[in-house]
Amino acid sequence: MAKFKLDEVDHQILDMLIENTRTPFTDIAKKLLISAGTVHVRVKKMEEAGIIEGSSLTLDYKKLGYSFIAYVGIYLQNTSQTKFVLQRIREIPFVTVAHITTGKFNIFCKVRAKDTNHAKDIIFQLDDIDGVYRTETMISLEESINDKKRLMHSIFQDL
Amino acid sequence: MAKFKLDEVDHQILDMLIENTRTPFTDIAKKLLISAGTVHVRVKKMEEAGIIEGSSLTLDYKKLGYSFIAYVGIYLQNTSQTKFVLQRIREIPFVTVAHITTGKFNIFCKVRAKDTNHAKDIIFQLDDIDGVYRTETMISLEESINDKKRLMHSIFQDL
Amino acid sequence: MAKFKLDEVDHQILDMLIENTRTPFTDIAKKLLISAGTVHVRVKKMEEAGIIEGSSLTLDYKKLGYSFIAYVGIYLQNTSQTKFVLQRIREIPFVTVAHITTGKFNIFCKVRAKDTNHAKDIIFQLDDIDGVYRTETMISLEESINDKKRLMHSIFQDL
Amino acid sequence: MAKFKLDEVDHQILDMLIENTRTPFTDIAKKLLISAGTVHVRVKKMEEAGIIEGSSLTLDYKKLGYSFIAYVGIYLQNTSQTKFVLQRIREIPFVTVAHITTGKFNIFCKVRAKDTNHAKDIIFQLDDIDGVYRTETMISLEESINDKKRLMHSIFQDL
Amino acid sequence: MAKFKLDEVDHQILDMLIENTRTPFTDIAKKLLISAGTVHVRVKKMEEAGIIEGSSLTLDYKKLGYSFIAYVGIYLQNTSQTKFVLQRIREIPFVTVAHITTGKFNIFCKVRAKDTNHAKDIIFQLDDIDGVYRTETMISLEESINDKKRLMHSIFQDL
Amino acid sequence: MAKFKLDEVDHQILDMLIENTRTPFTDIAKKLLISAGTVHVRVKKMEEAGIIEGSSLTLDYKKLGYSFIAYVGIYLQNTSQTKFVLQRIREIPFVTVAHITTGKFNIFCKVRAKDTNHAKDIIFQLDDIDGVYRTETMISLEESINDKKRLMHSIFQDL
Amino acid sequence: MAKFKLDEVDHQILDMLIENTRTPFTDIAKKLLISAGTVHVRVKKMEEAGIIEGSSLTLDYKKLGYSFIAYVGIYLQNTSQTKFVLQRIREIPFVTVAHITTGKFNIFCKVRAKDTNHAKDIIFQLDDIDGVYRTETMISLEESINDKKRLMHSIFQDL
Amino acid sequence: MAKFKLDEVDHQILDMLIENTRTPFTDIAKKLLISAGTVHVRVKKMEEAGIIEGSSLTLDYKKLGYSFIAYVGIYLQNTSQTKFVLQRIREIPFVTVAHITTGKFNIFCKVRAKDTNHAKDIIFQLDDIDGVYRTETMISLEESINDKKRLMHSIFQDL
Repeated sequence: MAKFKLDEVDHQILDMLIENTRTPFTDIAKKLLISAGTVHVRVKKMEEAGIIEGSSLTLDYKKLGYSFIAYVGIYLQNTSQTKFVLQRIREIPFVTVAHITTGKFNIFCKVRAKDTNHAKDIIFQLDDIDGVYRTETMISLEESINDKKRLMHSIFQDL
Repeated sequence: MAKFKLDEVDHQILDMLIENTRTPFTDIAKKLLISAGTVHVRVKKMEEAGIIEGSSLTLDYKKLGYSFIAYVGIYLQNTSQTKFVLQRIREIPFVTVAHITTGKFNIFCKVRAKDTNHAKDIIFQLDDIDGVYRTETMISLEESINDKKRLMHSIFQDL
Repeated sequence: MAKFKLDEVDHQILDMLIENTRTPFTDIAKKLLISAGTVHVRVKKMEEAGIIEGSSLTLDYKKLGYSFIAYVGIYLQNTSQTKFVLQRIREIPFVTVAHITTGKFNIFCKVRAKDTNHAKDIIFQLDDIDGVYRTETMISLEESINDKKRLMHSIFQDL
Repeated sequence: MAKFKLDEVDHQILDMLIENTRTPFTDIAKKLLISAGTVHVRVKKMEEAGIIEGSSLTLDYKKLGYSFIAYVGIYLQNTSQTKFVLQRIREIPFVTVAHITTGKFNIFCKVRAKDTNHAKDIIFQLDDIDGVYRTETMISLEESINDKKRLMHSIFQDL
Repeated sequence: MAKFKLDEVDHQILDMLIENTRTPFTDIAKKLLISAGTVHVRVKKMEEAGIIEGSSLTLDYKKLGYSFIAYVGIYLQNTSQTKFVLQRIREIPFVTVAHITTGKFNIFCKVRAKDTNHAKDIIFQLDDIDGVYRTETMISLEESINDKKRLMHSIFQDL
Repeated sequence: MAKFKLDEVDHQILDMLIENTRTPFTDIAKKLLISAGTVHVRVKKMEEAGIIEGSSLTLDYKKLGYSFIAYVGIYLQNTSQTKFVLQRIREIPFVTVAHITTGKFNIFCKVRAKDTNHAKDIIFQLDDIDGVYRTETMISLEESINDKKRLMHSIFQDL
Repeated sequence: MAKFKLDEVDHQILDMLIENTRTPFTDIAKKLLISAGTVHVRVKKMEEAGIIEGSSLTLDYKKLGYSFIAYVGIYLQNTSQTKFVLQRIREIPFVTVAHITTGKFNIFCKVRAKDTNHAKDIIFQLDDIDGVYRTETMISLEESINDKKRLMHSIFQDL
Repeated sequence: MAKFKLDEVDHQILDMLIENTRTPFTDIAKKLLISAGTVHVRVKKMEEAGIIEGSSLTLDYKKLGYSFIAYVGIYLQNTSQTKFVLQRIREIPFVTVAHITTGKFNIFCKVRAKDTNHAKDIIFQLDDIDGVYRTETMISLEESINDKKRLMHSIFQDL
């Protein structure tokens, strides 16, 4: 599938950026004993190849008043409505992840809310989308792991 | 809970960093008509307050050969083992998210794998952790939404 | 949330009223070595602050011929009907508690009835409300604990 | 079962006490055109017959910081442990109601907690009781009805 | 409920009829040292009181080619249809028992059929009744106990 | 399977006995225009062939104070215990029917009890049998059909 | 049912054809010390009797790029649609097996696909058939046994 | 994955063998206007590449007295026992297919049996394997589709 080949230098650059996306290229260059220009070229190449799609901030949602996480399973009336329903879900910013799944649900979402009451409002919004037959909610008591860095390092060691 | 107050300038800085964590502070300064030093001080303050915890790359996992996503619900023999089991789960880099949940599962995980076979190996690793009673897996046929940016913007508009 | 602060005297008054809501204020005053007027003022203040909402009798339902308790989970056709359905449920006096819930049910009720036959009638009434899609019933074989006093004492010790 | 017969006067006394357990007997007497002594005798008789077991305060739990309600279904390893487990549950003041039930659970509880985190602690305490095999939790998004007065009036109209 | 009182002689008569409904009254009379007329009067009295409703043959269904037993749970679209659906079920002679139940089914039936294929036809007939939403079938691999005699003796010892 | 062939006369005899097992043979003989001796021989033959196994009384259990019916599904720890558990179940007279089943239960029973409390005791007895892992109970709100006569007539018309 | 009797020679012929349907009749004849003509006659007879319906190739689907196997349970809106839905399913070549089943599903299918994405397309095709209410999918992580030869040998040893 | 390339001639040969594995190579040669030797070489090559693994008879199991099909889901005590349990399952010839699956079962089997009683014996054998925790059975009322030929043709058209 991925014809693009990453070499050892790419891996080391990625390993540093994974830890901190804001690491200055000059720091990376110094550590890897290459020029900053090379770092720049390599990163650009990986962006153009679509391997690096962007970067995102990691915020402390609890400190921002969003401590409530729920997983919501959605049953559709008919799967032909899947795309339309996903478009409507995309309008609800509190749904951060949505999958088309096997098993009993048609769509499975992750929701971040302020509290029980806010979660209720969001679930009701999902329930009210045309084509949604019913929903089932599982509430998180604690987000114990949320860390893609271990995965990323593992992927690059593996390649 | 959050005594730290973010003002309008903080919000605008965050809005730009959310879109691209690597946006140079000078660019932010220029856009907001403030000094780069101010941007620096504000970001530092938000990092120290723990609101900004860090940043992470957004990779195209499909291009990297990791196109298989599964959600695994874990039943424990006894919830007193929760912490120990989570420690063991943390050793498996392919588990990117884990929650302690209400409902039928004790722990609920998100797994990224290369393919069916790789997923089987990871699920077997989870099953073999002491204290894990059994697991139930739901497979993603398509990750339709995975986007925290909408949430982040919404939070800051809301504050 | 609750800006109203209860002091030690309030707690002691509540502790006595929790045991018996009909305890005369003069008895409370004597025990706490304060005036009956003070007790009166404090209770009034807690009522005005909405902390004390009222009081209720504890009856022996078995002796009154109501020995059958069931929990009824209600699935709605659509959650937009929640408020309307709750209004209709409120007209059935045998439903003493109703919650909007997460998980598989939309609404979850506690029902007190005379016997199996009476329970069947009440369940059929619930089933016949417009917007109710179906119900699922769990029957109590014994109400082993029904006691808010332990909770109330615990709350006031804790404050 | 209930050989004790309540007459019209008893019903009217109960109807007033149901609305407010602290209604002075002199007020009841005046309204019913009987003597306060008669009210006293009637209430005493109903208490001795065990029909009136006591009275309880109705507090606003939200204002007291206890806004989280969960229903917890408990599976036992063996029903011979039911009594022992119920004794242990009774030591947890946040469990206000517990039933031995038919259906999939052996014991079914109502829990009041401060928030998600507190609920997690209580659920873990339940899970750690010897003989408890596992638990399943359903979270209330809103307690829409909690009112025994309608039932009580209905019972006495019915008798 | 049952004001009718059975005495020791009634019990002994019933005990003999339970074992064999065709036991001649003269045999019962001889064994109990009473007259056949007395037996006749007693049985008549129990029939008139509705305690004895009739008698039924016990056939060996396997020998008659009906060796397939299934339990079918029926979900209705709406419980207001219960009576109508039961009338339609009564037209299918292969349904020997039907209950209105709590739990997930609205109606729960016992079906005797010749074989898998015959069972399929009966289940399809049930499924096709107006108001039946869907059915769920559990198949008996062996009818290990089917004996009301132990119950009957136990009831009469107990009275 | 059934080599024994029933002829038209057998069917007519059975049709009358199904309606009332106590119908005197002379009445049957008169109606069918055959001798009482022939009736006797035919019935004897069907008994010896094992087609007629016996007869049972139909009692009104409600009038006898047994108005509570429950279906109990039993999960075993291991199916090798099936026979032993069935022996122990046979000692409980209130279990009138028991099947080895496919689907989620290993054994499925019908229980007749006096009331909720009596049912609880019987369910606890079942739960306490060695090898029983757990039980699940479904309660009958009304026994709407309990009639094998329609089946019996249908079988004999069909043969 | 099967009036056709297979003798020892038939069994031995079948035993060899089961191992390899292309075994030349002359080889079979040599091994069994009979003439090739006899083998031919016997096979023809078994084909005419409908015992041998044909033969099929065993392909390595993984090598052909079809490594994904799923089982899909289908719920119908109404079982009267069963035949029509099966006709539509027959148009999807990736469904290799379909059963009308008891239990929660109406129809239960086996699907072979190229990968997750292809499986999603097939499941969506099933979901879009008129009369299909919803589907539930279980994914195979490994096909560990797929072998009818042991069964066939066992049947012929047993006859 | 499959480096081996099939050309148009291979496809046409396969298309004919799919319809009848016993088609003589001379017939195939005549139809495709190639030599029988070429057919032989091509088939051999596909066998050596592992694409053709063998061939199997299609028998009419009903005519052979095996008309009962069940799907059995197996829960293991621990997935580390998967391989061992599969070995033991392989010793039961009536299990024709077995998968390691996601979802609630660990292993999912297809069973062919003579009748209900035989199925019970096989299910009990599965239940008695060490490491099998419990099983759940779904019974086929009709095998409506069992045809890999459509799939095979589709694969070769597609390549």
